[in-house]
Amino acid sequence: MSPSSLLHFLDFAGVAVFAVSGALAAGRKSLDLLGVVVIAIVTSIGGGTLRDLLLDRTAFWIADPRYLVTIIGAALFTVVYVRFRRPPDKALQYADALGLALFSIAGAQIAESSGLGGLIAVVMGTITGVFGGVLRDVLCAEIPMILRKGNIYATAAIAGASLYVVLQDAGLARPWAAAAGMATIAGLRIAAIAWNLTLPVFTLSERR
Amino acid sequence: MSPSSLLHFLDFAGVAVFAVSGALAAGRKSLDLLGVVVIAIVTSIGGGTLRDLLLDRTAFWIADPRYLVTIIGAALFTVVYVRFRRPPDKALQYADALGLALFSIAGAQIAESSGLGGLIAVVMGTITGVFGGVLRDVLCAEIPMILRKGNIYATAAIAGASLYVVLQDAGLARPWAAAAGMATIAGLRIAAIAWNLTLPVFTLSERR
Amino acid sequence: MSPSSLLHFLDFAGVAVFAVSGALAAGRKSLDLLGVVVIAIVTSIGGGTLRDLLLDRTAFWIADPRYLVTIIGAALFTVVYVRFRRPPDKALQYADALGLALFSIAGAQIAESSGLGGLIAVVMGTITGVFGGVLRDVLCAEIPMILRKGNIYATAAIAGASLYVVLQDAGLARPWAAAAGMATIAGLRIAAIAWNLTLPVFTLSERR
Repeated sequence: MSPSSLLHFLDFAGVAVFAVSGALAAGRKSLDLLGVVVIAIVTSIGGGTLRDLLLDRTAFWIADPRYLVTIIGAALFTVVYVRFRRPPDKALQYADALGLALFSIAGAQIAESSGLGGLIAVVMGTITGVFGGVLRDVLCAEIPMILRKGNIYATAAIAGASLYVVLQDAGLARPWAAAAGMATIAGLRIAAIAWNLTLPVFTLSERR
Repeated sequence: MSPSSLLHFLDFAGVAVFAVSGALAAGRKSLDLLGVVVIAIVTSIGGGTLRDLLLDRTAFWIADPRYLVTIIGAALFTVVYVRFRRPPDKALQYADALGLALFSIAGAQIAESSGLGGLIAVVMGTITGVFGGVLRDVLCAEIPMILRKGNIYATAAIAGASLYVVLQDAGLARPWAAAAGMATIAGLRIAAIAWNLTLPVFTLSERR
Repeated sequence: MSPSSLLHFLDFAGVAVFAVSGALAAGRKSLDLLGVVVIAIVTSIGGGTLRDLLLDRTAFWIADPRYLVTIIGAALFTVVYVRFRRPPDKALQYADALGLALFSIAGAQIAESSGLGGLIAVVMGTITGVFGGVLRDVLCAEIPMILRKGNIYATAAIAGASLYVVLQDAGLARPWAAAAGMATIAGLRIAAIAWNLTLPVFTLSERR
C-alpha cells in the first residue's frame, strides 16, 4: 500500500484499531465470540474492500492475509482485555481518528494511482475510511453512526481528502499533501470528540 | 449509456429524482447535512453500481463523475427547498416512477449488451431500478420499502423489463420494446400510487 | 462447480433449501409475494455472489441462470405449501445444515482453485455458506442470526472449512478432506440444533 515501512506499520495499526472498535461495538450487542470476530473483521476491511471492488483491484486482505491475522488477534485481545479492565474510551477514539486519517488518504492515493480524478479520489478516500463502520452498524441493526446526530466523522474524511487533492493541484509534493490531509482529518475528528462539535441536523418539519 | 441525447438527459434526470427521494427519506430520520448527501448518493447510484459490479464493468459514476455532481446538487437543492416549502409529494412520486422506468430498462439493455439472456436482463434491470432504494432503507434501519406492505414497485420493474425482453424476442425493434417496457413500469407504478393498488401479503399464520 | 453429477445435484439442492429458508423468514415479516421471492433469491445467492465478486469471477447465477429458476420455483412452492400445512421445522433445519456444509466446502474449493492460501479459503468458504443468511436478516432489519445468541452456525462452517484445509495439508486426498469437512459442518450444526449447544456470549459489563 505504501513504500515506507512507517506507513506500512501505520496501515496494520489502522486495521487493528478498527478491529478493536468493532469488537467493542459487538460487545455492546451481546454477540457470541464468533460474532465479535466477524464484526471486527467487517469493520476493519469493509471500506478498503468496497474501494477495491469498485476499482477492480484484488481486495487488500486477499492479497496479504496478514491483515486478517492482525484483525483476529486484535479482536481476541479486546475480548480478553475487557474481562479485566474498562476499555479506555477517549484513548480509543483518538486512535480511531488516526485510523480514519490514514485509511482515507490511503484510499484517495489508490484511486489516484488508478488514474481517477479528484472528485472520485475524495469519494474513494471517504469510502475507505468510513464504510467499515457503516457495515458494523448495519449488522448491529442500527442507523449508521456516521449518518446520525451531526457527528463529524465522514465530514472529517471528506475535508481532509479534499485538502489532499487541492494541495496537490496547487503544486505541493504528494507526501506533504498527504500529511496535511491526514492532520486535517485527525485534527477535526479529535476536536469534534474533545469539544462535542456537531453539524446542523436536517429535519423535515411535518411527519409524512 | 445511450446514444440519443434525450435518453442521456433522462439519465441525469433519473439520478436527480432518486437523489431528491433519498434526501427526503434522510430528512425523515433527522440525519445531519452530510448524512442527507450520503443517503442521496447511495439511493441514486446503488442500483447501477451493483449491476456494474456484477457485470464486471466500471461503475457508471466512476466513468462519468458528472453523475455525482448532479446528485450532490439535487440533494442540496432539496435541503434548501424544504426549508421554505412543503415538498410536492405526488409530483415527486410520479417523477420517481419515471426514474424507475428509465433505470430498469437501461439496466436490462446493459445486461443484453454484455451478451446475457432474458432472465438475467430482467434481474439486472430490476436491480438497477430498485437496489438504490433498498440500500437507502437499510441505512435508515428499516425493512426495505419494496418488500413491505404489498406495494407495487419492484413488481412494476419486473413486469416492464420482462415485457421489454418478450417484445424483442417477438421481433419488435429495440427502441419500441424499450418504450413499451418503460410505459408499463411508469404506468403500473403511477396506477398503484393513484389507486393504492397492492399485492397480496404472505404471512405465516403461526408465530414460530 | 463440481464435476460429479451427485455434487451438481447437491448444489441445486443447496440453493433450493436456502430459498425455502428465505421464503419462511419473509413469511414471518408479512412481506408481499414479490418480497418473499426477493428474500429467497438473496438468501440463496448472497454468499456465492460475494465470493465471486471478491475473487473476480462471474457470479455463478449469471453463468448458469438455472439457479434462479430453481430458487424462484422453491420460493413459490413454499408459499403454496404453507397455505395448507405447517412447515416441518426440524426437517428444514437439518436440510439447511446440509446446504451450509456443501456451500462452505464448495466455496473453499473455489478459493483454492484461484490459487489462494488456506486462511483465505476458510474465509471464502464461510462467506459462501453464511452471507446469504446475513443479507436475509439485514433486509428484514434484524441483527443477523449468525451473530446472535451464541448459536453455532458460522462456527460450524469455519471449523469444517479449516479441517478441510488442514487435512489436505496433511496429505489427505481432496475428496476425502471435503467429505470430512462437510460431515463436520453438518454434524456440528445438527448437534447444536438437537441439543441447543451455544458459544459463550461476550458482553461489555457497563452500558456506555
